[in-house]
Amino acid sequence: MASPVTRIGSPTSDVSRLVMRGRAVLTDVLGKKTFTEAFYFIVTGNDIEPSKLPVMDACMIVLMDHGITPTAIVARLIADSLPGQAQIGIAAGTMMIGEKFVGTMTGMGSLLLEGVASGKEPRVWARETVENAAKLKRRLPGFGHPYYHPTDPRTLRLMEIAREHGVNGPYIALVHVLSEELDRVSGKHLTLNVTGALGALLCELGFPAAAMRGLAVVSRAAGLVAHTIEEAGNPVSPAFMEFAGEIEYRDPE
Amino acid sequence: MASPVTRIGSPTSDVSRLVMRGRAVLTDVLGKKTFTEAFYFIVTGNDIEPSKLPVMDACMIVLMDHGITPTAIVARLIADSLPGQAQIGIAAGTMMIGEKFVGTMTGMGSLLLEGVASGKEPRVWARETVENAAKLKRRLPGFGHPYYHPTDPRTLRLMEIAREHGVNGPYIALVHVLSEELDRVSGKHLTLNVTGALGALLCELGFPAAAMRGLAVVSRAAGLVAHTIEEAGNPVSPAFMEFAGEIEYRDPE
Amino acid sequence: MASPVTRIGSPTSDVSRLVMRGRAVLTDVLGKKTFTEAFYFIVTGNDIEPSKLPVMDACMIVLMDHGITPTAIVARLIADSLPGQAQIGIAAGTMMIGEKFVGTMTGMGSLLLEGVASGKEPRVWARETVENAAKLKRRLPGFGHPYYHPTDPRTLRLMEIAREHGVNGPYIALVHVLSEELDRVSGKHLTLNVTGALGALLCELGFPAAAMRGLAVVSRAAGLVAHTIEEAGNPVSPAFMEFAGEIEYRDPE
Amino acid sequence: MASPVTRIGSPTSDVSRLVMRGRAVLTDVLGKKTFTEAFYFIVTGNDIEPSKLPVMDACMIVLMDHGITPTAIVARLIADSLPGQAQIGIAAGTMMIGEKFVGTMTGMGSLLLEGVASGKEPRVWARETVENAAKLKRRLPGFGHPYYHPTDPRTLRLMEIAREHGVNGPYIALVHVLSEELDRVSGKHLTLNVTGALGALLCELGFPAAAMRGLAVVSRAAGLVAHTIEEAGNPVSPAFMEFAGEIEYRDPE
Repeated sequence: MASPVTRIGSPTSDVSRLVMRGRAVLTDVLGKKTFTEAFYFIVTGNDIEPSKLPVMDACMIVLMDHGITPTAIVARLIADSLPGQAQIGIAAGTMMIGEKFVGTMTGMGSLLLEGVASGKEPRVWARETVENAAKLKRRLPGFGHPYYHPTDPRTLRLMEIAREHGVNGPYIALVHVLSEELDRVSGKHLTLNVTGALGALLCELGFPAAAMRGLAVVSRAAGLVAHTIEEAGNPVSPAFMEFAGEIEYRDPE
Repeated sequence: MASPVTRIGSPTSDVSRLVMRGRAVLTDVLGKKTFTEAFYFIVTGNDIEPSKLPVMDACMIVLMDHGITPTAIVARLIADSLPGQAQIGIAAGTMMIGEKFVGTMTGMGSLLLEGVASGKEPRVWARETVENAAKLKRRLPGFGHPYYHPTDPRTLRLMEIAREHGVNGPYIALVHVLSEELDRVSGKHLTLNVTGALGALLCELGFPAAAMRGLAVVSRAAGLVAHTIEEAGNPVSPAFMEFAGEIEYRDPE
Repeated sequence: MASPVTRIGSPTSDVSRLVMRGRAVLTDVLGKKTFTEAFYFIVTGNDIEPSKLPVMDACMIVLMDHGITPTAIVARLIADSLPGQAQIGIAAGTMMIGEKFVGTMTGMGSLLLEGVASGKEPRVWARETVENAAKLKRRLPGFGHPYYHPTDPRTLRLMEIAREHGVNGPYIALVHVLSEELDRVSGKHLTLNVTGALGALLCELGFPAAAMRGLAVVSRAAGLVAHTIEEAGNPVSPAFMEFAGEIEYRDPE
Repeated sequence: MASPVTRIGSPTSDVSRLVMRGRAVLTDVLGKKTFTEAFYFIVTGNDIEPSKLPVMDACMIVLMDHGITPTAIVARLIADSLPGQAQIGIAAGTMMIGEKFVGTMTGMGSLLLEGVASGKEPRVWARETVENAAKLKRRLPGFGHPYYHPTDPRTLRLMEIAREHGVNGPYIALVHVLSEELDRVSGKHLTLNVTGALGALLCELGFPAAAMRGLAVVSRAAGLVAHTIEEAGNPVSPAFMEFAGEIEYRDPE
């Protein structure tokens, strides 16, 4: 077997240097880059264009919190059961970033990359994509929301921030065409939700689709830090346990 | 039982607003704050002073990566076993941020907060603290490193960045006194490692000790996103499995 | 919303009884059932037929261990990093029971249930299934093994144990027909591996397909307890870290 | 570094044999041992005495379920968010087996092993232990229960099963003396709870203290399989989310 190689960073045991993707961490990253820049850099190996940085920051903030969501419940219950191991609750909460919650960015990102790479006329591609999904009875990622209808205000705001910073390319154009075709084929309006918008925006920023769910992990982890801290002083866990205790047990039918 | 309350953010179901700690997310956070500012804000409820922001960014970057560490091995092996569920490997890697790796920041932070709050003369407090730990045969958090001796270059660089930005208060002073007393009592030099330095710096920034391990989770999650992406295209898992396969099995003695 | 109901067990807060699926735990389960019987009972709500119990036990043991597998590496590295929290390493190891390792039992179980329920002549159904998978370029779950060829000795032994205990129904018959048709269509022999065999056997026992991956979690967790104990006294983690430290870091191309 | 060695089982790559702690898995374990026997064997390297097996089974069943506990809530919420990855919810639920819930068996086991090994007169040792804990303001593991008072019926039943099978040694004697001394010193009765009883019984069975929390993982994982299956067909998650949505958000004070 060929020896494995990594291009992320130098090993701990190499005390002569501390390198991240070819850059000296101590002098060229620390004190020079913001966290968001460093995250973009370690994932892509490239510096983000300074004009696009505020868009990247917005993309990383928008999923940080939405109150006592299932991810927050899980993080808080686990924090309550493992005092002194704060990292476990936070981590377990972020594991829920899958197909159902938030994790659909990767799906939307891949779809749009495919669409643009296909070279097809956007409306043609969008129609085919929507019809194909309908035939396979598959939902398109990034559309629909249980509460926001007809629009997700986070989508509108992210798109506005993108425009303000000159981020306005083929992926954003394509996601809107896709949305129109989806409405046409399904005969009703489906909200382009925040993860759909993020799929398009992150493609514009050159952030890889495969890393989009990871970006959501970083973002939500930040919010869950706040929830686990609050739980320690002002817990919601007892209320959930009381609520659980009231769920009726029934013998087999 | 009193009804539980949260002060982190408004619930998903409340479509009339999207609030984070009293601030409108869409207009006052998105497009206005960097990720680091938003993280500081959601955890503490306060805005970080602009002059201190670069120090906070440096604190959040320094733990992002250190090559193929145990956290990276775990993240990569799990990513390899669950393609399509990138969040699980990243999250599982961050669960390892405990007493042994990185998670000691919280211990150091608490210690320094206690020391400053005690009102004792720093050297007196440091001596007592060191002697107490020696008596209980407990290691002080944040000292010692398997590779960096006599100094951890990340500690030096972080301290330099702090000075450049005017962050220079009692916690930083105290950690150095503590280091001196520790050396005196133990009769040998112990490195003030990066997590020890972070404990002191984050106290200066007003970041709570209980959230420091959480900050490490966010930071390392960012690095693990890069590792899981690399694993998909350029895996190290097969080499680890081959290495594991060569570990000798022996019958009972 | 209708109030939720559970039929698994009575709540902790109900001190007047301790019931599991209609049975008094203290008098009708504890001291009366083996762990395997209780597991079968809590999952299915039915008592396993005594004659089939040894087959169920064999199914639960066969995946318990296979040396220093990726699940064991993960469990041991995490146990090493979180001494005192043994449950985290064990749990994280079991999270890897997915499509790649072991978790394919559920896929095979579902497939066979579908096949028998279809009422089709077995060979016709098998041929259609294999051809369909080939057309979609999808692998059938439960076939192929990196080391065992042409047969997986665990499959043979499990089938033998089943025969000895009179477990010999349509699912076992169907899995063998499926195996033959797969070989015919693919033009080469693919091993019916242990998870393929388990899919068939557990269907025979009336154990639901959706719970098969869960059975693997229970089984492997048992093995990982042994690994984490061994790690504490006789660690492999340092060797893995040393091996990781030798993975070459390279600057970007 | 000395090459690492394992004494648990032979590696997957060694197709010539399949060995678990010196025993051939295919012929000497599969079809010969129950799951409980195999678990005891892989952890300890010894065969459990047949007369004691029903006690071990009871110890492994008693923690399997207690209705919609926090572990079940977490498992079910995660199962709901990751359909198709049943192992994640089950595993995350078992991570909560720590100091607060269930995980105290290890503490009690270690304490009793220490007590018997000390060679001290039981009552003397118990008094010292209780007084020491009182001085350090530490709770003794295995005592107290939020609902069961003055006795935990599971403790009584487990002790009865032990007696029926001749399991009746120094650890059981010592835990009762410890209970009496604890009541005397604290001036009130504290329930010897089920994890306290398990600590004593598992010591009698020769099951190592360090593996007791692991036993609880295996046991609870079995119960959580049932909960995740029920969740798929008859979910409680929507009710928890609705309840969470009603938790009031308040602006900063």
